[in-house]
Amino acid sequence: MNVLIVCAHPEPQSLNGSLKTVAVAHLQQRGHQVKVSDLYAMRWKAQLDAADTLAPLVGAHYDASVDSRFAFENHLQPADIAAEQEKLRWADCVIFQFPLWWFSMPAILKGWFDRVYANGFAYGVGEHNDQHWGDRYGEGNLAGKRAMLVVTTGGWESHYSPRGINGDINELLFPIQHGMLFYPGFSVLPPLVFYRVQKSSQQQYAAWCDELVARLDTLAEAEPIAFRRQNNGDYDIPALTLNEELAAGKQGLSIHIAK
Amino acid sequence: MNVLIVCAHPEPQSLNGSLKTVAVAHLQQRGHQVKVSDLYAMRWKAQLDAADTLAPLVGAHYDASVDSRFAFENHLQPADIAAEQEKLRWADCVIFQFPLWWFSMPAILKGWFDRVYANGFAYGVGEHNDQHWGDRYGEGNLAGKRAMLVVTTGGWESHYSPRGINGDINELLFPIQHGMLFYPGFSVLPPLVFYRVQKSSQQQYAAWCDELVARLDTLAEAEPIAFRRQNNGDYDIPALTLNEELAAGKQGLSIHIAK
Repeated sequence: MNVLIVCAHPEPQSLNGSLKTVAVAHLQQRGHQVKVSDLYAMRWKAQLDAADTLAPLVGAHYDASVDSRFAFENHLQPADIAAEQEKLRWADCVIFQFPLWWFSMPAILKGWFDRVYANGFAYGVGEHNDQHWGDRYGEGNLAGKRAMLVVTTGGWESHYSPRGINGDINELLFPIQHGMLFYPGFSVLPPLVFYRVQKSSQQQYAAWCDELVARLDTLAEAEPIAFRRQNNGDYDIPALTLNEELAAGKQGLSIHIAK
Repeated sequence: MNVLIVCAHPEPQSLNGSLKTVAVAHLQQRGHQVKVSDLYAMRWKAQLDAADTLAPLVGAHYDASVDSRFAFENHLQPADIAAEQEKLRWADCVIFQFPLWWFSMPAILKGWFDRVYANGFAYGVGEHNDQHWGDRYGEGNLAGKRAMLVVTTGGWESHYSPRGINGDINELLFPIQHGMLFYPGFSVLPPLVFYRVQKSSQQQYAAWCDELVARLDTLAEAEPIAFRRQNNGDYDIPALTLNEELAAGKQGLSIHIAK
């Protein structure tokens, strides 16, 4: 497989840095092709702005959506954005590895999504009609590819459990896994989360590496999270609310996963 | 009141830019003191890294948590971070205004939280013992202050409704409202969300301004979201799972709000 690792940690000598090195070595040793986007090392520009189109502005002022689309369609994007899109086209599987900062990803990685996910590439794709509301949530330019999060947290596992005070980790990750990955078409594998990483021993580190390697060995066949597809009848179009008979009477993010 | 507006939009001539201007003028006209952190205009540095301490590294390599704490306690933070913390100390109420990009905030605003929320300032505060797990989730250095999100989205309101495909807006905002605002002590007011902003008419814009102004006029007395406090008995310490008798048998982010 072609595997892209997008990682975001400021310190190469950190746990995140080590896990990335372990992942690359293991994947290569198994015969996979590997590319790495190490965002801090690349000094990735985080903020989406008017410099992200090389074209004159389409309208009287900068519009992220309109200008992103024009730049994308006319090959007038900055080289760093176009290169990441090309890596995504190349990849069969993408691993996003990052420390959970404030219950989300580091800003530099959010800026990767904000900038690389151009209008026409990751959104604004496909027809909108009464049966089909664009190619998204299971369809889209990244369909057929797999994605997996590898996340480290300082907090305890129980604090992120289904009734833990931080919120269930699967629901905290919903905006990422469902909104950023499933939306443009990825099949999303269950996340790999390492807890209490500040207190880790050598023994604990070895166990984490084993877990990571085990997950890397099943990237191709692991069962993705069963997020419901938008255009197969589960949602009423155009309201895009879940049909009444599915998860009847229920609310909450988990209704968007088929049981 | 002292009101701080932290806003993140790349284009002053946008809806977000206009709403910010309206808010500032209205608050001042009502006699409030207003400060604005317009992150794009400030060219805010988004990525947290070793340049965010002016001290020598505490350990052999950069550790965001350790070095952030040392810099904070020893007044060795970069001026931009210290200035934002000072604005937070000054403020009675903070408004965070941004477009929802990929179901979260723009990277530049995430980088405000990553950098301004130093260890010792917004986390790592208070004692940890069997009855009290740090000053957080209702306690902390920002306790007594109010916060409110003002968010714009391109998507339809129904797509963000309790059974909408994007996920319930209140749950999508949980990592922000609960994790970034309630955690260090803020009382969090219900968010003000404007939908389908790309298609807005002059009439729609006027209605939004009315809504915004109405919310600004009730900042001081509006009822905050009833997020459960950590240290008042609702959660078992140190597991920090919600007591079995509260929201009995339920899971999902909404259990952390007292009904």
